[in-house]
Amino acid sequence: MSGVHLQASGAAVQRVAVELGERSYHVLIGHGLLDDATAWHSPAVDASAMVVTNATVAPLYLDRLLQVLRARHRRVHSVELPDGEQHKDWPTLNRVFDALLQSRCDRSTTVYALGGGVVGDMAGFAAACFMRGVPHVQLPTTLLAQVDSSVGGKTAINHPLGKNMIGAFHQPQVVVCDLDTLGTLPERELRAGLAEVVKYGPIADWAFFEWLEHHVDDLLAREPRALLHAVKRSCEIKADIVARDEREGDLRAVLNFGHTFGHAIEAGLGFGAWLHGEAVAAGMVLAASLSARLGLTDEATCARLVALLSRCGLPTCVPALPTDRYLELMRLDKKARDGDIRFTLLAGRGRAVVHSARDDLVREVVESARQGASS
Amino acid sequence: MSGVHLQASGAAVQRVAVELGERSYHVLIGHGLLDDATAWHSPAVDASAMVVTNATVAPLYLDRLLQVLRARHRRVHSVELPDGEQHKDWPTLNRVFDALLQSRCDRSTTVYALGGGVVGDMAGFAAACFMRGVPHVQLPTTLLAQVDSSVGGKTAINHPLGKNMIGAFHQPQVVVCDLDTLGTLPERELRAGLAEVVKYGPIADWAFFEWLEHHVDDLLAREPRALLHAVKRSCEIKADIVARDEREGDLRAVLNFGHTFGHAIEAGLGFGAWLHGEAVAAGMVLAASLSARLGLTDEATCARLVALLSRCGLPTCVPALPTDRYLELMRLDKKARDGDIRFTLLAGRGRAVVHSARDDLVREVVESARQGASS
Repeated sequence: MSGVHLQASGAAVQRVAVELGERSYHVLIGHGLLDDATAWHSPAVDASAMVVTNATVAPLYLDRLLQVLRARHRRVHSVELPDGEQHKDWPTLNRVFDALLQSRCDRSTTVYALGGGVVGDMAGFAAACFMRGVPHVQLPTTLLAQVDSSVGGKTAINHPLGKNMIGAFHQPQVVVCDLDTLGTLPERELRAGLAEVVKYGPIADWAFFEWLEHHVDDLLAREPRALLHAVKRSCEIKADIVARDEREGDLRAVLNFGHTFGHAIEAGLGFGAWLHGEAVAAGMVLAASLSARLGLTDEATCARLVALLSRCGLPTCVPALPTDRYLELMRLDKKARDGDIRFTLLAGRGRAVVHSARDDLVREVVESARQGASS
Repeated sequence: MSGVHLQASGAAVQRVAVELGERSYHVLIGHGLLDDATAWHSPAVDASAMVVTNATVAPLYLDRLLQVLRARHRRVHSVELPDGEQHKDWPTLNRVFDALLQSRCDRSTTVYALGGGVVGDMAGFAAACFMRGVPHVQLPTTLLAQVDSSVGGKTAINHPLGKNMIGAFHQPQVVVCDLDTLGTLPERELRAGLAEVVKYGPIADWAFFEWLEHHVDDLLAREPRALLHAVKRSCEIKADIVARDEREGDLRAVLNFGHTFGHAIEAGLGFGAWLHGEAVAAGMVLAASLSARLGLTDEATCARLVALLSRCGLPTCVPALPTDRYLELMRLDKKARDGDIRFTLLAGRGRAVVHSARDDLVREVVESARQGASS
């Protein structure tokens, strides 16, 4: 599933294949990739391009990307969105459609997502819907987007009643993870991204979890070899799961570990108050705790997860919203069936299952992990 | 591709298969089908249902459909949209998402479209995007929806800059054409639907065109056997084309005969001023005229098309918008490539091709067919 390929510059580019038949593509991981389109893509030069980015990323990388794309597309346009999960909504998405139509883009236009998870989701969903589907390329610039959201073709916007409720499966042509972009990432964003990295251990690869326990300080120090391994191993695990279950039956749903509680935190506080990765971190603690109460995993596993997330500087308690509010929001989760909440729970070390749980157990878990609760 | 199946009531139900591998489904055509769900569907009874309809259709058929669905779904909800192409937009679509989430619908919910082309497009697109895709059933109640828009999985909403610019390919589980619903159809809507019926002759089946020349008065009189044949033959032709080109390469684009000019009329006048079928009728006249000027078809074919559309009471001239406005709007057509407008043109009788044309020829055609122009 992965290999090494020499860049023009001589640096190694790691490639992870996402095997989806005619929708297969590669995740490329390396340094300096944003400036080296020859390493990652060969679009038709006569087609146009639209780069979707945000106000934070544009000053850092947009000009460089436009310059590279101008050598490969006849016309290159860009649109800059406001930054933050609170803007992952229809009015903001519509700015992408406005830009595409005002720039006379057409079915042969490639949409490039340059930014984090929000930009990737919005650009990907715009590409899925514009003229009923155009090609797109993901250029994730945050750790969270590189290890998770840019891979696998899930795109969506939020609805006031729930996260990622309106969206599409739309696979990219290629995902280009330039590790250099992690150098400009704010500390809080780096830590939030680590939540999704940590996630892969308990659900799929306990040895990776143990590697993370040994290398979390290297990752926080942005040590290049540690980042490369963390991004690559995360992409490999995700690619493997997506290849076996593209449209999320119960298998792909294991990637949602921590997300049922996490999405409820995000929606309950208002999108953007906590970063997605922060909400997922607290959500994983609750999901692990629920797994232990159901006898699916042991307390020691939970404790190691809490310890690792704490070392990442991530929250391990949930905000003090009413317990009923958590239950109400989770009944809207996409895994729910007829009001029955279904959680991704740990089943031992390196394995997860989708499972329902009685409301009283869920209440206990929320209440014991609430911020400010005496435990 | 078609067969006969006896309904419980003893009346014959015609079935047209849309062969799309795992996305295959049937179009059922007959009388009394709305009240006889046993003839058309067997959803899981524990899943919920959401019926999307509009303010015109709801008083006529909604209660009957809800009663039938209550026997087959644990929970049945409905949402009523305003009627008209001018409402095929995001704010109206969002009412469907609001209803789905407020009613706690989930990934197992089936969305039913009860109405004409606008309802079908919006319900279908909502089903495509809600939680990244849920099943849907088309119950078209207009001639236009029965012969064209409900079949083939194209769904979309309009953008102020162009028709059907934001959408998805999302095939239904089944399409149920209850011919009885055509009895309540306003005269103008019946005539507009005939435009899409007429379309199939010149592009795919000249014998059908000649049959229409002989039976247009029967169709306008809503003679049941004539309607049955027209709906069935239209669905057969569409199913055959869609099966060979689901996602619209050049083959499926032949179904767009008249639509490049037609969409420009609709967008130029403001959505809803002309009915879609009226705009397509005038658009077919222009496209045929352009085909003749390019030597792809003869004047006699054009004259017969104009004559038949006139007998249907459909417009054969375009509204008096500036010629430049037509060109500007058509450059945004989904078939356009890098500003080069591509038309579906006739290539003889019963055959169409996708072809570009010089701007000066397009101008001549628009100007010679403008309402009020001396010709």
